[in-house]
Amino acid sequence: MESFDSEASYLAELAHRAGLPDGFRAATTRFHFTPAERPAGKPYGMNLALLTVDPPSRSFAGLFTRNRFPGAPVIVARQRMHAPRLAGILINNKISNVCSPTGLEDVHTLTSAVAERLGGDASEFLSVSTGIIGWSLPVSHMVDSLPNLGERLGRADALEVARAIMTTDSFPKVRSATVGGARIVGIAKGAGMVEPNLATMLVFLLTDADIDREALRTILSRAVAQSFNRISVDSDQSTSDMVVAVSSQRHPVDEAAFESALSGVCSALAGDVVRNGEGTCHVIRVRLRGVERESDAAGLAKAVVNSPLVKTAVYGNDPNVGRIIGALGDHAGTFDVALDPTLVEVRMGSEVVFSQGVFRLDKEKELRLSDYLRAAAIDPNSHGFPQHDRCVDIDITCGTGPAEVEVLGSDLSHGYVTENADYRT
Amino acid sequence: MESFDSEASYLAELAHRAGLPDGFRAATTRFHFTPAERPAGKPYGMNLALLTVDPPSRSFAGLFTRNRFPGAPVIVARQRMHAPRLAGILINNKISNVCSPTGLEDVHTLTSAVAERLGGDASEFLSVSTGIIGWSLPVSHMVDSLPNLGERLGRADALEVARAIMTTDSFPKVRSATVGGARIVGIAKGAGMVEPNLATMLVFLLTDADIDREALRTILSRAVAQSFNRISVDSDQSTSDMVVAVSSQRHPVDEAAFESALSGVCSALAGDVVRNGEGTCHVIRVRLRGVERESDAAGLAKAVVNSPLVKTAVYGNDPNVGRIIGALGDHAGTFDVALDPTLVEVRMGSEVVFSQGVFRLDKEKELRLSDYLRAAAIDPNSHGFPQHDRCVDIDITCGTGPAEVEVLGSDLSHGYVTENADYRT
Repeated sequence: MESFDSEASYLAELAHRAGLPDGFRAATTRFHFTPAERPAGKPYGMNLALLTVDPPSRSFAGLFTRNRFPGAPVIVARQRMHAPRLAGILINNKISNVCSPTGLEDVHTLTSAVAERLGGDASEFLSVSTGIIGWSLPVSHMVDSLPNLGERLGRADALEVARAIMTTDSFPKVRSATVGGARIVGIAKGAGMVEPNLATMLVFLLTDADIDREALRTILSRAVAQSFNRISVDSDQSTSDMVVAVSSQRHPVDEAAFESALSGVCSALAGDVVRNGEGTCHVIRVRLRGVERESDAAGLAKAVVNSPLVKTAVYGNDPNVGRIIGALGDHAGTFDVALDPTLVEVRMGSEVVFSQGVFRLDKEKELRLSDYLRAAAIDPNSHGFPQHDRCVDIDITCGTGPAEVEVLGSDLSHGYVTENADYRT
Repeated sequence: MESFDSEASYLAELAHRAGLPDGFRAATTRFHFTPAERPAGKPYGMNLALLTVDPPSRSFAGLFTRNRFPGAPVIVARQRMHAPRLAGILINNKISNVCSPTGLEDVHTLTSAVAERLGGDASEFLSVSTGIIGWSLPVSHMVDSLPNLGERLGRADALEVARAIMTTDSFPKVRSATVGGARIVGIAKGAGMVEPNLATMLVFLLTDADIDREALRTILSRAVAQSFNRISVDSDQSTSDMVVAVSSQRHPVDEAAFESALSGVCSALAGDVVRNGEGTCHVIRVRLRGVERESDAAGLAKAVVNSPLVKTAVYGNDPNVGRIIGALGDHAGTFDVALDPTLVEVRMGSEVVFSQGVFRLDKEKELRLSDYLRAAAIDPNSHGFPQHDRCVDIDITCGTGPAEVEVLGSDLSHGYVTENADYRT
C-alpha cells in the first residue's frame, strides 16, 4: 500500500518521478490579470507551462472530450493530430477557452507567438486551457509572458509543470515508469468530483520510447478506455478534457511491455485524479460483473458510483446499502438492462449485504460496515497529499454474463458543495 | 404568485383544501418500535394512515416505479390494479418494504388484517410503505395498531394524512380542485432532491367525479407524464414510487374538464415535492425546445437540472452559466443527440447568456444574474412552509425542432449533504 505521512514526503516521491524523458524540456511562469467579465474582486493569477520536444515529434496521439461544446483548444488540437510534427504544448490554468467569441483566434495567436519564439510552424504547437468556462483568455498578457517562458525552458521538471497546471487540485499528480531503456512520465491535472468548477482533466504522457505514431495511437486508446474512461468524474465529459501522448522516439522498446507500462501510468494517474480533491473524503471503487455487455456493466457501475445518495451515505460513514440497490434498479429500469434481482449479489468490503433478492443485514454487520467506511476515510484537514490508497470497495455480481468492469468515484461531501458553490474566485 | 408568511397561514390554506371527496374516509395513528437491524439508538416512531372508499371503488388507476428492485408494496399493488374493486389503502412511513426477506408475506399479512377488520377481501386493499430501504417492517406492531386506526376512521382529513405519511418532508402537500359538482384531492409525500434517504414519492389522488376505470387510467398516465415524470428527483425511480388515483364515482363530470383539473393538481403537487425540502434553497425550472424528439428534449433538460455543478452554482447564487453549456454538451455527446452549438440560445431569467456558439457575458450582466438568483432563493431557516413559488428559470432553445419540455429540479446545498450523510435516524 502506498501511503504518505506529509506533503514533503509526497513531493519528494514526485520529484523522484519527475525527470523528463530524453528530448523533452519544460518551463513555467506566472502573471496577474483582471478578467473582462468579472464583476469585482482581486486580480487573478494565471500559470503558464510550456512543454517542448526537440527535434519535433513525429509520434504523438491525442484523445479528446466528446462534449458537443468543445473548447477552442480541443477543436484545434484535434486538427493538429493530423499534422506531421508536434513541437510543443502551451498550457494555462484559470480560464478555459470554451465558446469565447475569440476562442479559435486566440489559439492561433498563442501558437503563432510560441512558434515565432521557438522556431517552427504554429501548426506544430498546441495551446491548452483549463479553468472557468465562458470567459475569454487574457491573450495579450499571455503573449507578453512568452519571452520569460522561453528563457526558462529546460529549468522545470514534470513536478513543476504538474503544479503549474493545477486549478484547485489539492496535490500535483505525476507518475512514471521505465520500460527497457526508455521512460514514460505522465502529468495530470484533474478534477475528480472535486473541482469540476474548473471542469477539466488534462493528461500529458511523455516518453522517449521508440514507438511509432500508429502504435502509439492504438495503445493510448486502449489504455485510456480502461483508466480515465473508468473514473466517474463530472469532468470526464467536460468541454476541455484531453489526453495527449508524445514520444521523442529515442530508445527501442518491446511494444507489449510499453503498452503495459503506459496502462499502468494511466491507471495510477486516474486514481490520483479521483483521490486528489479537497472535497473527496472517500474513494469508492465499484467492481461489477456478470452482465452480457461491457457498456451495460459500465452504465450500472457508474450509476452506483454517481448516485448522490450512495455518495452522501459513504461520506457519512453510513452503510446505507439500500441506496446501492436503488441506484442499480433505477439504471436498469431506465435503460432497460436485463437484471434479475434473485441473481444479484452485493458486497461492501468483505460483507455480503444483498443476495438472492433480499438484503442480508443485522446489527453487528451494520457496525462492522460503519467501521470499514471510517477506516477508508481521507482526513479533509490534511490535504495536499494522498494519505493512503484505501478505497470503499463495492463488489456487485449481476448474473453469469461475461462483462466485467471497475469504476472509481468519490463521495459527496460538504467540501464539494462549498468548493462548487463559491463564486468563481 | 402564491406566497405564505408563516407555517400557520400555509396550514390554514391546506385545511381549506383538505376535506375528502364524497365516499372517502381517513384515519391516522402512531406507535414506537425498535428496528431489528438497527445497531443502536432510540426507538423509531412510525405513522400509519388509512384511506378508505365506501362502497369499494370500481374505478382506480396506478402508476409505479420502473426501478428493477421494486418494493413488495409496488409488486402487490401492480397486481391488484387488475382486481375488480379497491376498498382502501394502508400507508406507513419510516421503513419501506423493499427486498426484505419477508416483504410479500408482510403485505399479505397487513392487507388481510385490514380486510378482516373492515370487511371485504385482502385483494381489495393496498399496503404502501416509505422509508429506509433494506430493513423489515415491524408487522406485529402495525397489526396491533389496526383496531385503533379502525376506530378513528372518518376523523382525519387529507391534511392529517399528508402529515402522517411525511418522512423528512419539511411541509405536508395537499392540492385540490373542483370540476363541476365533483372534487379532486391530491396528497403527496415526496422527496425532491431533499430526503431521498427515504427514497420515495407517494401520491394519492381521490375524487368523487364519475369517471370510469379506463378513462381514469388514460387520463392519469397523461397527467403524470407531464408532471411527476418531469420533476428531476432521485426518487422518480425509487424502489417504491407510486401514484394511485381512486374514484368514488358520485358526481357526473365532463371528461376534458376532469383531465384538465387532475393535471393541474398533479403539476401543483409535483412543484410542491421539488420545493418542499430542507435541503432545497432554489427551485430550478428548465424549459427546453427546438430538438426533434421529446425524449431528447427531456434528456437534455434533465442533464442540466441534474448536473451537480449547475446545482451547486445556483445554490451559491453564482451565475456560472458555463456549467449549463457543459452539461448540455456532455449529454449530447454521450447520447449522440444532434446539437449545433451555433443554433443554441440559453437564457437565465430574462438574460441571454449564450447564443450563436458563444457566451454573451459582461460584468453588469453577471451582477444582474447574481441578484436574480438571490431573489429566487428559499430561506432554509424558515422551512415548514413554502415561502414563495419563484423559480430560477433556464430557457434553452436548441434549434427549430418541434419538441418542447419543462423540467423542475432543485439546487444542491449543504443541507442536502447533511440530510443524506446522517446515519439513518
